[in-house]
Amino acid sequence: MDRVRLHQLLTGVRDGTVGVEEALAALRTLPFEDLGFARVDHHRAIRKGFPEVIFGQGKTAPQIAQIAQCLVAQGQQALITRLDEAKAQEVRVLLPALRYYPEGRLGAVGEPPLPPQGQGIVLVVAAGTADLPVAEEAALSAQFMGNRVERLYDVGVAGLHRLLGSAETLHAATVLVVVAGMEGALPSVVAGLVDKPVIAVPTSVGYGASFNGLAALLAMLNSCAAGVVVVNIDNGFGAAAAATLINRLTCHQPRD
Amino acid sequence: MDRVRLHQLLTGVRDGTVGVEEALAALRTLPFEDLGFARVDHHRAIRKGFPEVIFGQGKTAPQIAQIAQCLVAQGQQALITRLDEAKAQEVRVLLPALRYYPEGRLGAVGEPPLPPQGQGIVLVVAAGTADLPVAEEAALSAQFMGNRVERLYDVGVAGLHRLLGSAETLHAATVLVVVAGMEGALPSVVAGLVDKPVIAVPTSVGYGASFNGLAALLAMLNSCAAGVVVVNIDNGFGAAAAATLINRLTCHQPRD
Amino acid sequence: MDRVRLHQLLTGVRDGTVGVEEALAALRTLPFEDLGFARVDHHRAIRKGFPEVIFGQGKTAPQIAQIAQCLVAQGQQALITRLDEAKAQEVRVLLPALRYYPEGRLGAVGEPPLPPQGQGIVLVVAAGTADLPVAEEAALSAQFMGNRVERLYDVGVAGLHRLLGSAETLHAATVLVVVAGMEGALPSVVAGLVDKPVIAVPTSVGYGASFNGLAALLAMLNSCAAGVVVVNIDNGFGAAAAATLINRLTCHQPRD
Amino acid sequence: MDRVRLHQLLTGVRDGTVGVEEALAALRTLPFEDLGFARVDHHRAIRKGFPEVIFGQGKTAPQIAQIAQCLVAQGQQALITRLDEAKAQEVRVLLPALRYYPEGRLGAVGEPPLPPQGQGIVLVVAAGTADLPVAEEAALSAQFMGNRVERLYDVGVAGLHRLLGSAETLHAATVLVVVAGMEGALPSVVAGLVDKPVIAVPTSVGYGASFNGLAALLAMLNSCAAGVVVVNIDNGFGAAAAATLINRLTCHQPRD
Amino acid sequence: MDRVRLHQLLTGVRDGTVGVEEALAALRTLPFEDLGFARVDHHRAIRKGFPEVIFGQGKTAPQIAQIAQCLVAQGQQALITRLDEAKAQEVRVLLPALRYYPEGRLGAVGEPPLPPQGQGIVLVVAAGTADLPVAEEAALSAQFMGNRVERLYDVGVAGLHRLLGSAETLHAATVLVVVAGMEGALPSVVAGLVDKPVIAVPTSVGYGASFNGLAALLAMLNSCAAGVVVVNIDNGFGAAAAATLINRLTCHQPRD
Amino acid sequence: MDRVRLHQLLTGVRDGTVGVEEALAALRTLPFEDLGFARVDHHRAIRKGFPEVIFGQGKTAPQIAQIAQCLVAQGQQALITRLDEAKAQEVRVLLPALRYYPEGRLGAVGEPPLPPQGQGIVLVVAAGTADLPVAEEAALSAQFMGNRVERLYDVGVAGLHRLLGSAETLHAATVLVVVAGMEGALPSVVAGLVDKPVIAVPTSVGYGASFNGLAALLAMLNSCAAGVVVVNIDNGFGAAAAATLINRLTCHQPRD
Amino acid sequence: MDRVRLHQLLTGVRDGTVGVEEALAALRTLPFEDLGFARVDHHRAIRKGFPEVIFGQGKTAPQIAQIAQCLVAQGQQALITRLDEAKAQEVRVLLPALRYYPEGRLGAVGEPPLPPQGQGIVLVVAAGTADLPVAEEAALSAQFMGNRVERLYDVGVAGLHRLLGSAETLHAATVLVVVAGMEGALPSVVAGLVDKPVIAVPTSVGYGASFNGLAALLAMLNSCAAGVVVVNIDNGFGAAAAATLINRLTCHQPRD
Amino acid sequence: MDRVRLHQLLTGVRDGTVGVEEALAALRTLPFEDLGFARVDHHRAIRKGFPEVIFGQGKTAPQIAQIAQCLVAQGQQALITRLDEAKAQEVRVLLPALRYYPEGRLGAVGEPPLPPQGQGIVLVVAAGTADLPVAEEAALSAQFMGNRVERLYDVGVAGLHRLLGSAETLHAATVLVVVAGMEGALPSVVAGLVDKPVIAVPTSVGYGASFNGLAALLAMLNSCAAGVVVVNIDNGFGAAAAATLINRLTCHQPRD
Repeated sequence: MDRVRLHQLLTGVRDGTVGVEEALAALRTLPFEDLGFARVDHHRAIRKGFPEVIFGQGKTAPQIAQIAQCLVAQGQQALITRLDEAKAQEVRVLLPALRYYPEGRLGAVGEPPLPPQGQGIVLVVAAGTADLPVAEEAALSAQFMGNRVERLYDVGVAGLHRLLGSAETLHAATVLVVVAGMEGALPSVVAGLVDKPVIAVPTSVGYGASFNGLAALLAMLNSCAAGVVVVNIDNGFGAAAAATLINRLTCHQPRD
Repeated sequence: MDRVRLHQLLTGVRDGTVGVEEALAALRTLPFEDLGFARVDHHRAIRKGFPEVIFGQGKTAPQIAQIAQCLVAQGQQALITRLDEAKAQEVRVLLPALRYYPEGRLGAVGEPPLPPQGQGIVLVVAAGTADLPVAEEAALSAQFMGNRVERLYDVGVAGLHRLLGSAETLHAATVLVVVAGMEGALPSVVAGLVDKPVIAVPTSVGYGASFNGLAALLAMLNSCAAGVVVVNIDNGFGAAAAATLINRLTCHQPRD
Repeated sequence: MDRVRLHQLLTGVRDGTVGVEEALAALRTLPFEDLGFARVDHHRAIRKGFPEVIFGQGKTAPQIAQIAQCLVAQGQQALITRLDEAKAQEVRVLLPALRYYPEGRLGAVGEPPLPPQGQGIVLVVAAGTADLPVAEEAALSAQFMGNRVERLYDVGVAGLHRLLGSAETLHAATVLVVVAGMEGALPSVVAGLVDKPVIAVPTSVGYGASFNGLAALLAMLNSCAAGVVVVNIDNGFGAAAAATLINRLTCHQPRD
Repeated sequence: MDRVRLHQLLTGVRDGTVGVEEALAALRTLPFEDLGFARVDHHRAIRKGFPEVIFGQGKTAPQIAQIAQCLVAQGQQALITRLDEAKAQEVRVLLPALRYYPEGRLGAVGEPPLPPQGQGIVLVVAAGTADLPVAEEAALSAQFMGNRVERLYDVGVAGLHRLLGSAETLHAATVLVVVAGMEGALPSVVAGLVDKPVIAVPTSVGYGASFNGLAALLAMLNSCAAGVVVVNIDNGFGAAAAATLINRLTCHQPRD
Repeated sequence: MDRVRLHQLLTGVRDGTVGVEEALAALRTLPFEDLGFARVDHHRAIRKGFPEVIFGQGKTAPQIAQIAQCLVAQGQQALITRLDEAKAQEVRVLLPALRYYPEGRLGAVGEPPLPPQGQGIVLVVAAGTADLPVAEEAALSAQFMGNRVERLYDVGVAGLHRLLGSAETLHAATVLVVVAGMEGALPSVVAGLVDKPVIAVPTSVGYGASFNGLAALLAMLNSCAAGVVVVNIDNGFGAAAAATLINRLTCHQPRD
Repeated sequence: MDRVRLHQLLTGVRDGTVGVEEALAALRTLPFEDLGFARVDHHRAIRKGFPEVIFGQGKTAPQIAQIAQCLVAQGQQALITRLDEAKAQEVRVLLPALRYYPEGRLGAVGEPPLPPQGQGIVLVVAAGTADLPVAEEAALSAQFMGNRVERLYDVGVAGLHRLLGSAETLHAATVLVVVAGMEGALPSVVAGLVDKPVIAVPTSVGYGASFNGLAALLAMLNSCAAGVVVVNIDNGFGAAAAATLINRLTCHQPRD
Repeated sequence: MDRVRLHQLLTGVRDGTVGVEEALAALRTLPFEDLGFARVDHHRAIRKGFPEVIFGQGKTAPQIAQIAQCLVAQGQQALITRLDEAKAQEVRVLLPALRYYPEGRLGAVGEPPLPPQGQGIVLVVAAGTADLPVAEEAALSAQFMGNRVERLYDVGVAGLHRLLGSAETLHAATVLVVVAGMEGALPSVVAGLVDKPVIAVPTSVGYGASFNGLAALLAMLNSCAAGVVVVNIDNGFGAAAAATLINRLTCHQPRD
Repeated sequence: MDRVRLHQLLTGVRDGTVGVEEALAALRTLPFEDLGFARVDHHRAIRKGFPEVIFGQGKTAPQIAQIAQCLVAQGQQALITRLDEAKAQEVRVLLPALRYYPEGRLGAVGEPPLPPQGQGIVLVVAAGTADLPVAEEAALSAQFMGNRVERLYDVGVAGLHRLLGSAETLHAATVLVVVAGMEGALPSVVAGLVDKPVIAVPTSVGYGASFNGLAALLAMLNSCAAGVVVVNIDNGFGAAAAATLINRLTCHQPRD
């Protein structure tokens, strides 16, 4: 039952062609999503900031191309995550408009990235060069979602001077995405230096007792520094999405 | 070496009573924290929003009272987390000014909670009544840190109508702290309904294969909804601290 | 907005005191649970078979008594699970009508257990005597929910003749709840003998590498026998609830 | 010793050609399965509803073809699970009658699927498109075993309106198989909406802290909604087998 | 149906008072355990060597006393494992004949321990003094089951000379039960020195990353020395039972 | 220092050409393995029953061939475990005498398998056809080490009649190696039927929550049946080695 | 057979009262530890630096007192680890000479701590106040073993200035014991600042996903800083023992 | 701001061209790493002993070649770890000066290995031949860093005589790196024989319940022998780095 049918029902009540009890019965079985006014608006609001995202891993090139084309046909952008280089080439054959960013394993189609929406800076900090694919997934995704993004890479805790020497960059950020594998100590150290929210991203970089990122994940969850929150292992996109929602608050108009 | 002594050193150089090489040697061993200009300011800034926090678990009542008195003597507030009722009574004997909030296992001393700093609302959502101690730790901590806090409790996913019926409350929030044990599904559902950051707090509520909150923790880390970030099991205070840092951004003046 | 207010709204539309657009706006923000016609009916249907259940563990005696009294006042029954003997005595002081079943750590208040609803038999099978608290939680809960329940206890796989000698009992059952700790092998063996659904309940009985029931849980999830489904460790009530929903299908009138 | 030989033995006793003690000795070593009257009938009963199932993973194409041909020669059907496309082509060379269903990685030989046996509907619900192989394994297996099957796909909890809008479909089901990876929240939400048994199937869809489906498995085992039972990760067939046994109860004639 | 009734049935067939078909029908539903000739003999054989064992942990003193009295009344012995000192005193009030062995947390009632049955020696080797309760559970249980038992304690691998100096004792053993906590290295070292089966018993002795015996368990399962088999953590009785079955083979008369 | 040199030393002392103190000094640094009388005899005894075993996994074909040739040159046999078919062909090019047993992934060189040494029967029992590689590794290894071996395959617990119908075979065994994956229930059931030692071998057969054999391993360690001992996952050879040591005891001459 | 008896044996050979073959036979069964010349010297050397250590946890006060008295009677010192205050009082009743150090849960008897042996400094660094019991166990144990010990406490990574301000102390150390719970990041940071070996000690301080110190342990094992080695969770004594062995090398005279 | 600029600043203050307040302001924002006097010296000191290390795994050949060339251009050596043979060949095409050590999967460029720096011996002990790649990574790395290195391989605990016969080699070492997979028992045994620090390296050698080295890791962390410290699974380089730092102490000149 959509808005039109709901209008008809109410008009019927007004006009007396539909009884009150009959309308009550009709409303009783009203499907939720057909009503769902606020939710539709809300969905639209989300879409303005968040392009549609296609998780590329485990999908075939034709599947990805088809979903992306469908979105483009509706005038939307699409961001494709976890898209390796070989598959990207296959997708491009089907979808020549595909832009590919190998450093973050991301693809994109549709109009160019959104203009900045939040007024702040999303700073992506990475511990080592092996963490860069995840860091770039975060940085590029955040750019794609309309954030101003800066990068601070290769500042692992075993050489603190590199991090401490970038204090200005750290303090200028509005929200920080801190990416680290191995022992995952960087978010704690960074969060001890800034007074902004830190989104920690453990990576699967390491071997042996890193257990594919479990060590870094647990370290970040147990951070002794206040203000650290965590996303899944290697989830650069997830961190970017949360950072986007936080950065937007800098434009926030409070309710009164 | 504080600012005064540094001034004396430089004055000595200017006046010729301290040689350049001598000053170089003194600066060479300059303890970092004694210099630390920005950091001191920065710490003060943090302290304005974050009262000193004493992790009460595993400390004796005299230890807690002594640390708290020391803070009060410096004109600061102190928040004591994980303070059970029996220990709170012991502390109060030593520190009559202690205010105790049994529902969140929190104690506080010092001047009354800070006035609102962020312009938004921190909404604490809890799945079940057994999650309330963690939810209240979050809610009361957030209030103590100067946030406007609202609560939405007992809205677990097994009875969705309770959650869906509170859409207004959900949409009015600036940042949401969502507390759940058992299967930890609530943050995913909530994050699907709002366009604000969701801080998920797994609780140790459950038994058997909940493995003391591991099930809820893993569920939240794997949330299919964008914008969910996670803190440690039962870490209500940590969620409140992150929420405070996020809420403050609503007053953010961007750098130009 | 409840039924009364909805009726007023529709009456207003009929009478012309409320405009169609105004009603549309009101309905747009209609809280879901306040409408919730089908859900209310549906809830009532559930309640007919499922008494309200209070998870007793971690609640104080006054909390339990208050919730139970509230339910009784509404003419409902209440089942309290995980209620140990000491707490049961405390509850009874506040709620003299409490019936207590120590063998299943269950309490009940309200009118006597429901008459049989399903036409079949819920058979609770247990491997060892140490599994009895969980088995009785299942058996008594199932009785309370209106099932005809039979028991077959102490038929662990290390002495198969005990199980094989009860073939008639096994085959007479409509749905079987099979409770076992240690290596958790019983559900596989039972499911190999019957053609009815088997709900496996791992228990935390064991030590060392049982890891509080993990060994039994994993064994049951990996059952080589078709038709085995699993619930959480020690979750006798959950098995009974599922068994009740299955047993009811014996009265099922298919839709045409 | 089969029925014929047992008859001969008893006839010998009657006729005096076999002494009582001699017969006692013969019965003493009577192999169980040779007697097993009820069990043979019982097995036949199972076979009527459950075609023989060949677990294809880890078997070579010739092995699969040989077992399947053997079953067909006995007038039976065979269902082959976890049969990937490449191997299916190899099997078809050896067994041209093979029907292959790539969407569920299933193969089948023998007479066409059984006519509906239970009077109800097995509804297979899936959270995301990546869960479809497991969902289709469940759906096609259930069809093959003679159930009427319906599907409700891509209704993950991050967009609740999709699920809530299908309330009719949900309520029409007799037993629900709910398939989800990632955080595995869907079964809890579905079980909160229906009063029928829900068989939860965790999938290995996810990465990082999903630990190949462990996160979803634990979430489902800890479901706060009554009536949820769980099978192994990715075990679509197992869920279908249990659903079949449950659906059959709709035809159940109770013993008197 | 026991042997007597079976005899009556066969006599009836012989005498013509029971028809062949009637006897067939009676046999068809013959409960397995009632027939169970070999199994009854077999059980008796087991009982000759294995006294009945009551797992004392989690049972009340009255429960233990009642089961033990029942066994004694049938002329059997009973061994009670995991019986702590306080509970043993309670049991003795009810069952004055109880013999208690605090060093192995064992109780016993009934006739004195069986005379040696196997012709060999069960050697119990323990790494440290903290492993003694488990070692004594093994040693005393093995004695109780009729084995000649020797002990070699406090020979951990950090001081190899203690072990190497006992080569005679090691080589004289027929089967060795090797008990160790912490890193669980002793069974590998012992199995490298002897050519007899080694039953490794991990203990929960340790802290931190011993994870309650998991470290020792894994080490023993991964032993690089041939001939090591493993039982559950702290399962001294289980090791003794297996050692008894092995030691008996020294009296073995092969089938021809 | 071997026996010859030790004899020379003592003769020198007797003859006065070596002083007592000089001999003491020589003995003081005596390398252990050079003395090692008992150990050398002991090693020879082991070698008589245990052919040298080469763990083939992770070794190159040339490495395997070289080690095997070295053993053959010393008149010994060699057993190569975990040798896949491709590598076996490579080895055979270098070592034409290689005998290869693909069903157990074993290779052998040197004189034919030893004649029976123990007087008993090693029975290898396997639950499913997927467990056969491990079962055959056990069976062939045991044969190679001089045991009489029998096999009982495809007797999983989901169809008990297959196992129960083989009671004679089970009771004729001296020691049983029971191989099972999935839920690993077979050893418990078998150990409940026999009074001989049962060596349980968990296999990595399974998927999802079998966690590569962990489920079966835990189940076997928690067996409720006395007399079950366990080896590592997929360790068919280890079970055969332990079974050999046990079977030899049937020829045991006790010390007096 | 000790040195005296060996001398007698060789003298007998020299004097002709013991034949060469007889002596060979005697040496053949020579118990290893009785020979063990180097080992005895070696043990004495160890004892000089390492007092005997009694692991107090799980031992009764009388057991501890008896072992300690035995050591004192032999002129040795004894160090008792994991000795809580209540048990220490019980021990002191039996052993008035006991010195108790509650801050490290250590007891000691015998002559005063050894004078410095290594020429360097063992620096014990601790992250938080909750880590102090473990840190003090390390520091006091190291002092007791004759090291010069310094302490640097409460320098967790969330406030780096505290650590960086102590650069002199860090650089003066010869070997560093770094104690941390929670995320265990401190050893990585410290090892990035110094060029000396760092022994990392994870503590069980934390809650939730610290899993009793597992998070810190994994972090330390995955340290990205070269030169970090790790001991068991809460193993302050073990770190002190390793630090002592390292510190002694500062007095090392190389072999030529 | 480096030393030169700091000198200029101070000279300016002395000369009056820079005001005190101006200098204070300049120092206030002084980047840490630019000051860092001790740290720069300290870094140089580290580099003298530790060549730059490139973790080769996960890097492409061009990346490795480029980083190595950059180091060589600065007159430094470079050590490349985890460099497999195929990739080494690719690197050599780009960097002909590459020396490759396949036995330790190491590559090196730059001037020949440093001359011995510590005065002691780093002894690398390995349990089995499968552990050699890790052992050689340790041994070659230690040589490269300027240590005198000895090797003692294939001395697993299942044949103790091999280890005990090498007592001289063991006692001559200054620091021991002990490498073992499977049950990881060797470090405990070695540490019981020597009075020097033992760095234990668990390897991923094994299968089944070795869980890729977890069993060995846990065993080593729980070593009952004092003086054992542990590094990550397969981390031969890390052990060598720690051994180098320890060995250097033999040249240590204590501070006065």
